[in-house]
Amino acid sequence: MSAFSNRVHDYLSGLQSRITQAIEAADGRAVFRRDDWHKAAGEPLQGAGSTRILEGGAVFERAGIGLSQVRGPRLPPSATQHRPELEGSPFEAMGVSLVFHPLNPYVPTVHMNVRMISAGHPGTEPVCWFGGGMDLTPYYGFDEDCQHFHRTCRDALAPFGDDTYPRFKAWCDDYFFNRHRGEARGIGGIFYDDFVGGGAEQGLALTRAVGEAFLQAYLPIVERRAATPWGERERQHQLHRRGRYVEFNLVWDRGTHFGLQSGGRTESILLSMPPLVAWQYQRQPEPGSPEARLTEHFLVPRAWV
Amino acid sequence: MSAFSNRVHDYLSGLQSRITQAIEAADGRAVFRRDDWHKAAGEPLQGAGSTRILEGGAVFERAGIGLSQVRGPRLPPSATQHRPELEGSPFEAMGVSLVFHPLNPYVPTVHMNVRMISAGHPGTEPVCWFGGGMDLTPYYGFDEDCQHFHRTCRDALAPFGDDTYPRFKAWCDDYFFNRHRGEARGIGGIFYDDFVGGGAEQGLALTRAVGEAFLQAYLPIVERRAATPWGERERQHQLHRRGRYVEFNLVWDRGTHFGLQSGGRTESILLSMPPLVAWQYQRQPEPGSPEARLTEHFLVPRAWV
Repeated sequence: MSAFSNRVHDYLSGLQSRITQAIEAADGRAVFRRDDWHKAAGEPLQGAGSTRILEGGAVFERAGIGLSQVRGPRLPPSATQHRPELEGSPFEAMGVSLVFHPLNPYVPTVHMNVRMISAGHPGTEPVCWFGGGMDLTPYYGFDEDCQHFHRTCRDALAPFGDDTYPRFKAWCDDYFFNRHRGEARGIGGIFYDDFVGGGAEQGLALTRAVGEAFLQAYLPIVERRAATPWGERERQHQLHRRGRYVEFNLVWDRGTHFGLQSGGRTESILLSMPPLVAWQYQRQPEPGSPEARLTEHFLVPRAWV
Repeated sequence: MSAFSNRVHDYLSGLQSRITQAIEAADGRAVFRRDDWHKAAGEPLQGAGSTRILEGGAVFERAGIGLSQVRGPRLPPSATQHRPELEGSPFEAMGVSLVFHPLNPYVPTVHMNVRMISAGHPGTEPVCWFGGGMDLTPYYGFDEDCQHFHRTCRDALAPFGDDTYPRFKAWCDDYFFNRHRGEARGIGGIFYDDFVGGGAEQGLALTRAVGEAFLQAYLPIVERRAATPWGERERQHQLHRRGRYVEFNLVWDRGTHFGLQSGGRTESILLSMPPLVAWQYQRQPEPGSPEARLTEHFLVPRAWV
């Protein structure tokens, strides 16, 4: 690993620890289980990771956050479309990815990911590119929560140019969309891929900006909603909406789908699955209800800030 | 529609009705809701269907069976790989597809499908090909159930040659396999695709043979297991195993995946989803338990008859 890769990895590892601790503190009861893993020698990719998973908490029904770092002898074709000069070169990929599923249906599910790929033929300076983002999936919508989440994302991206937030926001709306339902997965956030920008240092700065913004974007919403009383009606609504989350991740999410089909670590990839999910034929919320308002008002791409 | 297509459609429609009635009788409490639909003019495919769904029954927690028939002006490229002479020709597709999810974890989930595609350039005799099969997914395995299911499949296929059952059985084992888990979806059955055989009449005969065998293959197992007492342990096991069913259908099943990505009728395609599903990190059954025996003994392709 180059010195730069080490710096990125150190940042990601620290980020995972800090988020883990903050989520344990917010939960107040459960702790993350730690599962460190290594890719056995002889597998196509070498690498290691640390999966942290909390299940059955007071606030979080299932919360998973994984750190992974893999190396391969040859960059896959899917990654060289825009970089033909790197075809077949050795590469390294690392990232932190999380999905938190709260128990209380008034607390939204959240997803965040930051990752770096670097590749280069031996004897040349490696090229680094970055991807990631965060997005929020409420079961009951609140304008102030959406505004807070998007404002935090916007402020985090401000140092990278005025057009960065609008661009990454639109990218997120486009990516996290259940096309077979004609419906957004959530209220969006930011998403970016293949970011090279002003070089590796700026990529790391972007990674830090997103990573540091995450708890600021999410925890105030958790604190605001965690004590809201809920019952069977809200629970059923949440379980069925979680079905849309599963549909998105297994049908549309390129990382999940590609990971499962290409021999990735299944249990780490499926950290994103909700703990309990329901499907029902043509379930329709009552017109005018908060459940109907979710799809009509919130799950429609709009300018929140 | 040609006279032959009419005959196939009549058979499929009758099959749907008979299965629906038999399942209602077996359930003893719930009835199927009927939802007839039409593709609006102007959509890429013309067609109609009848979706029947039973939810919250005494025996079946969710049981869906759909009949559909669509026509299109141009056969999709995925269907013309083996038939380049039909490229771009008008086509018709029809089928019955079902998935039944019982409430009692001792009763297995079952899937059955029979379908026909016919295509031909105007003024030529259309070519018909057939696909389908049935397979069983137990949560607790019983050798006699697996043997009965496979014996019924084998006997149904006997008129089509001695090699038909072994071929379709191996195809089923290969197709219904969760590659990311290294695990079969269930205990198999039969699966076939692109069957032309001795022409359209033989294809219809095969469709009838599979259709008629279905209730014989499944209902005796339902009757044998439906009164088995079960509790929270069995329920939790069932909910987690259902997660594998979701994973297969959304990640690997070509029909589901292609249907959702190409604008099929979402609620009809997702009839196959279980009513309630759970995920948990690295859930492992106790060594030596019936839950462990499921994966070790039953979810491994083997000769049942």
